[in-house]
Amino acid sequence: MADDGGQRGISMSAGTAVVVGVGESRGLGAALARRFAGEGLRVIVAGRTSARIEEVARGIRDEGGRAEARTVDATSESDVVGLFEAVGGDLELVAYNVGNNAMEPLLTLPAEVFERLWRQNALGGFLVGREAVRHMLPRGRGSVLFTGATASLRARPPFVAFASAKAALRAVAQGLAREFGPQGIHVAHVVIDGVIHGDYAEARFPDFVRAKGEDGLLEPDAIADSYWALHRQPNSAWTQELDLRPFKEPF
Amino acid sequence: MADDGGQRGISMSAGTAVVVGVGESRGLGAALARRFAGEGLRVIVAGRTSARIEEVARGIRDEGGRAEARTVDATSESDVVGLFEAVGGDLELVAYNVGNNAMEPLLTLPAEVFERLWRQNALGGFLVGREAVRHMLPRGRGSVLFTGATASLRARPPFVAFASAKAALRAVAQGLAREFGPQGIHVAHVVIDGVIHGDYAEARFPDFVRAKGEDGLLEPDAIADSYWALHRQPNSAWTQELDLRPFKEPF
Amino acid sequence: MADDGGQRGISMSAGTAVVVGVGESRGLGAALARRFAGEGLRVIVAGRTSARIEEVARGIRDEGGRAEARTVDATSESDVVGLFEAVGGDLELVAYNVGNNAMEPLLTLPAEVFERLWRQNALGGFLVGREAVRHMLPRGRGSVLFTGATASLRARPPFVAFASAKAALRAVAQGLAREFGPQGIHVAHVVIDGVIHGDYAEARFPDFVRAKGEDGLLEPDAIADSYWALHRQPNSAWTQELDLRPFKEPF
Amino acid sequence: MADDGGQRGISMSAGTAVVVGVGESRGLGAALARRFAGEGLRVIVAGRTSARIEEVARGIRDEGGRAEARTVDATSESDVVGLFEAVGGDLELVAYNVGNNAMEPLLTLPAEVFERLWRQNALGGFLVGREAVRHMLPRGRGSVLFTGATASLRARPPFVAFASAKAALRAVAQGLAREFGPQGIHVAHVVIDGVIHGDYAEARFPDFVRAKGEDGLLEPDAIADSYWALHRQPNSAWTQELDLRPFKEPF
Repeated sequence: MADDGGQRGISMSAGTAVVVGVGESRGLGAALARRFAGEGLRVIVAGRTSARIEEVARGIRDEGGRAEARTVDATSESDVVGLFEAVGGDLELVAYNVGNNAMEPLLTLPAEVFERLWRQNALGGFLVGREAVRHMLPRGRGSVLFTGATASLRARPPFVAFASAKAALRAVAQGLAREFGPQGIHVAHVVIDGVIHGDYAEARFPDFVRAKGEDGLLEPDAIADSYWALHRQPNSAWTQELDLRPFKEPF
Repeated sequence: MADDGGQRGISMSAGTAVVVGVGESRGLGAALARRFAGEGLRVIVAGRTSARIEEVARGIRDEGGRAEARTVDATSESDVVGLFEAVGGDLELVAYNVGNNAMEPLLTLPAEVFERLWRQNALGGFLVGREAVRHMLPRGRGSVLFTGATASLRARPPFVAFASAKAALRAVAQGLAREFGPQGIHVAHVVIDGVIHGDYAEARFPDFVRAKGEDGLLEPDAIADSYWALHRQPNSAWTQELDLRPFKEPF
Repeated sequence: MADDGGQRGISMSAGTAVVVGVGESRGLGAALARRFAGEGLRVIVAGRTSARIEEVARGIRDEGGRAEARTVDATSESDVVGLFEAVGGDLELVAYNVGNNAMEPLLTLPAEVFERLWRQNALGGFLVGREAVRHMLPRGRGSVLFTGATASLRARPPFVAFASAKAALRAVAQGLAREFGPQGIHVAHVVIDGVIHGDYAEARFPDFVRAKGEDGLLEPDAIADSYWALHRQPNSAWTQELDLRPFKEPF
Repeated sequence: MADDGGQRGISMSAGTAVVVGVGESRGLGAALARRFAGEGLRVIVAGRTSARIEEVARGIRDEGGRAEARTVDATSESDVVGLFEAVGGDLELVAYNVGNNAMEPLLTLPAEVFERLWRQNALGGFLVGREAVRHMLPRGRGSVLFTGATASLRARPPFVAFASAKAALRAVAQGLAREFGPQGIHVAHVVIDGVIHGDYAEARFPDFVRAKGEDGLLEPDAIADSYWALHRQPNSAWTQELDLRPFKEPF
């Protein structure tokens, strides 16, 4: 979108982005981090596994970008508070990208799994959203983008625990948008509909990946385009929610 | 609905109902318990506060109904498992009615409050739904009804934590319905849109209650009508979700 | 639902019901007419084909009910205006049940078919809803029930023209509910999800009917139960929308 | 979005765009036409009033763009068929932007108004969508973008006829997306939530415009950014629906 539009003359390349939930070198979190760095932002690459986030941050620096890894458990309030306190005063963009799926029939689903999915998807999203907004409000600007899923709209077995967690996250995103939009904070929820073409899918169901064929899965870099477009929307025309799916995906 | 419809000759008055979340003598949980007992079911009145549930159960017995109180923390897996193991083999109807609201701006919302609302509304609903279905499947019949809220569909400040929890519950109800409907278990989600005319509202915002006037709030007995109608639906025409609001309520 | 509930002592058996869209002797329109007559209401059986509506009305009278046939084209403003002017002053209940489906890929769909589906489903619904409300407002009571479809919520090929028409109808129902609910008129939209077990299905796809098996289709009498329950809801707990599907139906 | 992304080397600046529904020199239709021309596409500026579309087309040519005006009644099948037959074989992008609102209580709403809104919003959308897709399918590429409204999701008085028409349009867009997405045609529906800052608003409710203040209305050029971003999405991550609203707009 237009580089001069709606952001009132403040350069978009200044400032810091935080991507929470970077777990694969080829995955959405990493693609977002690379994209935001490629646009000139300093990027905090946050995740649980330090080896992975270090690798992603190093890759960005090797390309000439600015990136730092930070080990964070997004479900820990103190970790999340600490993460944003360390950012400094120029927070521009936050993406919350945590949360694994789990396939399990409800009848045999342990309470612990139900809870863990909620912690990763919803509680972490709440904590990151709350702290991100807190640091953005003084400047009255910034974007907070949540990676959601179609399951947030429709609970289908065997993904019901995941659906419940993603529905809880979607409400957080919507509530943040309603509360803080008028104060200049752009909060959006991206409904990912389909399988992301990352390391996880390649490792776990390679045959499925092959069967889908080219452009049959969501390419992380293509998703990153839309996250960046959301961030760049002029404030007279903001999106709160959009869906993303491969053109071949039935829905 | 017609007493002879769709349930093929099995008397509806046999069997046990469980109402989880009875916290006021004038409230929805108590109204449901009284209604189910009035229709001939034995009712387990379950809640956290033994004095209150004892009072409701006693009131039902005084009217000639069958009712037992059982102290249960719906957010405790062992409590919920124990509750249903104690029911016996004739479980017909379960209503999940737990979950308080909380009004708080997101920026100052403690993680503990966000989590507590989820535990009461969603985790408890998952546990009760899972165990109810487990005990209904052998007979291939029974209804599980969840008390939801409009917030499950739209997250509006200052009710976002509540909305997130109720959205998570709604997904559980929908998933259970999809998974177990074809096996004869009727799972429905009731979207309560407005304030229930119970002790809570009378005590907490009496002026609001007066201002709403007659039929301006949801009467518990009127809500109970629709829960009972859901339970009585013939299995060729089941409802998964309906909304309930006072006729005066804007929406 | 309870016969004494919420309508404050006015007998429900007084008054007139109008069912618009009676086209099969075994179908939803006919089942609604029989049910409303069975509850004591005088019923106007309205439809395009006089032989069919006469047969349904005669059947009701043979059973001791009060019924009159009236030939009406629901898409004609003057027909609809005339229908309600002829009813008299005691209009209690109206069901709008017009509208056939059509299976056709969008690319070869003639504009005429697209328009015809809209006229039957949406324009007729608007006209009937408007005139029904006009005649109910002086008494400040009455129910207007619309037969909708899942397609109103999701447009799937090859039913897109039908979906568009049903979405347009759903908006009419929702708008009427919002505008006239506070004046005592209960407007509800019933989302039929599945195939109704009527003459049409038997004649057009008998193998499908057999394959679905018992309770695999929506029985008209079972649907009629829920229409009647909607009409009987106390005004402190009204439903604006509910879905109905066979327990076996995937959704 | 990235100019090299996902479209596999075919220059985006080749080809023709058609904007149907250009009625103000400062309005969304005109802004879309200017934007598409600014990106290098030849633009057909289509609308009912030849003076206006000529003015917009001339303005584009004055800036060095390629634009032709074409008088079209979007609700006329022959006009729409003729429009697309005249385009030639390089149709890349179509925006359907027809449809006025009308504020009127349902009780006094003439059938003619109800029908006219449907013809402009829904029938025209169907005709343009069908013909656009027909001309895009041979190349297996192209975008069809529909201007929708929040009313398509929620029918609120006094905008119920408009809501019904926009709901009907939304179904058309969704159905086209489902049917033709897998064949390479990207169909998206944009939910405009708020008032567009065009000539219409300035002329009809200038005080409202002033009261909203800067960025309180949807700027046409800002909306056009998102239409262009939709068109540029790589086909592994397409959006079917997004909302757009001013950051100040409550929702």
